Amino acid sequence: MISKNTIKLIKSLEQKKFRIKEKAFIVEGDKIVSELINSKFKIEKLFATSIFLEKNISIISDLKIISEVTREELNQASLLKNPQNSIALCNLPETKKLPEKLDKNLKIYLDDIQDPGNLGTIIRICDWFGIEQLFCSLNTADMFNPKVIQASMGSFCRVNVYYSTFDQVAKLAKSSGSVIYGALLTGENIYKQKLPENALLVLGNEGKGINSEIEKSIFNKIKIPEFNSDDKFAESLNVSVATAIICSEFKRQNLFPNYSK
Amino acid sequence: MISKNTIKLIKSLEQKKFRIKEKAFIVEGDKIVSELINSKFKIEKLFATSIFLEKNISIISDLKIISEVTREELNQASLLKNPQNSIALCNLPETKKLPEKLDKNLKIYLDDIQDPGNLGTIIRICDWFGIEQLFCSLNTADMFNPKVIQASMGSFCRVNVYYSTFDQVAKLAKSSGSVIYGALLTGENIYKQKLPENALLVLGNEGKGINSEIEKSIFNKIKIPEFNSDDKFAESLNVSVATAIICSEFKRQNLFPNYSK
Repeated sequence: MISKNTIKLIKSLEQKKFRIKEKAFIVEGDKIVSELINSKFKIEKLFATSIFLEKNISIISDLKIISEVTREELNQASLLKNPQNSIALCNLPETKKLPEKLDKNLKIYLDDIQDPGNLGTIIRICDWFGIEQLFCSLNTADMFNPKVIQASMGSFCRVNVYYSTFDQVAKLAKSSGSVIYGALLTGENIYKQKLPENALLVLGNEGKGINSEIEKSIFNKIKIPEFNSDDKFAESLNVSVATAIICSEFKRQNLFPNYSK
Repeated sequence: MISKNTIKLIKSLEQKKFRIKEKAFIVEGDKIVSELINSKFKIEKLFATSIFLEKNISIISDLKIISEVTREELNQASLLKNPQNSIALCNLPETKKLPEKLDKNLKIYLDDIQDPGNLGTIIRICDWFGIEQLFCSLNTADMFNPKVIQASMGSFCRVNVYYSTFDQVAKLAKSSGSVIYGALLTGENIYKQKLPENALLVLGNEGKGINSEIEKSIFNKIKIPEFNSDDKFAESLNVSVATAIICSEFKRQNLFPNYSK
């Protein structure tokens, strides 16, 4: 049984101000919750149907968190259009402090990515490409927004997401020997550039691109070339799609360079 | 002024059965509508505020279609969370007949892609990479679903989208000298394969992948390799993100092969 107050709490956690006030966030979706169970995040309460519990009981170490509920009860509390069999109410962790050094592999800095679906998809892309450090400007969507969690699938459990000004991350890049690259329409063709593994890739806001102040610090400007000859319209790519293509090219060049059969 | 009946009509067009019954579909969003105006699609009625009309009046050849409305009126009719300044009510075109020959460039076949956002994003990716023929299985989302139109941005105006069984497209591929490639978890590393320009790339359903019957016809199986060494969890990529990465690699190999500075 989920109390009325808990349902009200869960619904409120869609908004950042309540996540901060209640020091809590929620995770939904059976695949995501099952990955959450053994992650670094602390589950306060797990509302789940018998279907979910049968499948996952063996991986739950602290049985006290479990509250078995019916599908109907879950539906009432869920923020999803198509509720599944589990909702986890978690402790909101403290804001993650910047690392002392940047990873030697590719890293990403997001400058004001506002769509939660884009941020979640980018977290999932980082996970795929083994990118362990994802930096976000202070105006980027909040990683604990339920839509970010949803789009990231289980990947938010594995990628380290930091919120910071660009200046601080740029300083870290300098001291760690990371070269800063920015995705800009005025940049050079990514397929004609030597892209180093130890790089910090900056991606800009969906509508406005990279902030002009930040752009001043970026000497390596790159872009995905357009392939469509019809220039009547300015085609564009979704920022998460562009991120995926650029990460793919960085990784290919460093791990599978000049491969020939 | 938008009549109550028209509002009812617009709202009903969210569903395929009403789009077919009314032979109509709608397009929203100022950027998308402005690209629609000079496309092959026929606008029956354009509901727009003075803001939209001032910007776009010069490109509208048939002024009879215009119905100037207030922002409030548009809000009432809109299917969007954040309505903009225009809604176009368009004629639903006849189902597009398969072409006689396949294009010599890369083509895509989608096997039951069900999420409209994914289909729209893939249409946008096709537009970027100059992929002119996109084939969809009969169970793939409908390209005239407002969510597909939205995610495709203006790209649905430019990419040719066909609905067909795989067999018919495979026959065309054979007669056009196109090699069929399928994205499968059991496939070979795309970065270690020679990928020809004249290919038909098959992508499978979000959850189930490529149908086993179709898989039998695919001799060239490819995949994006995983880069994350932590194999405790099966990472995955969103199908539209995977499409973008694979298209990028096809294009890079054929247009910028073995580039070195």
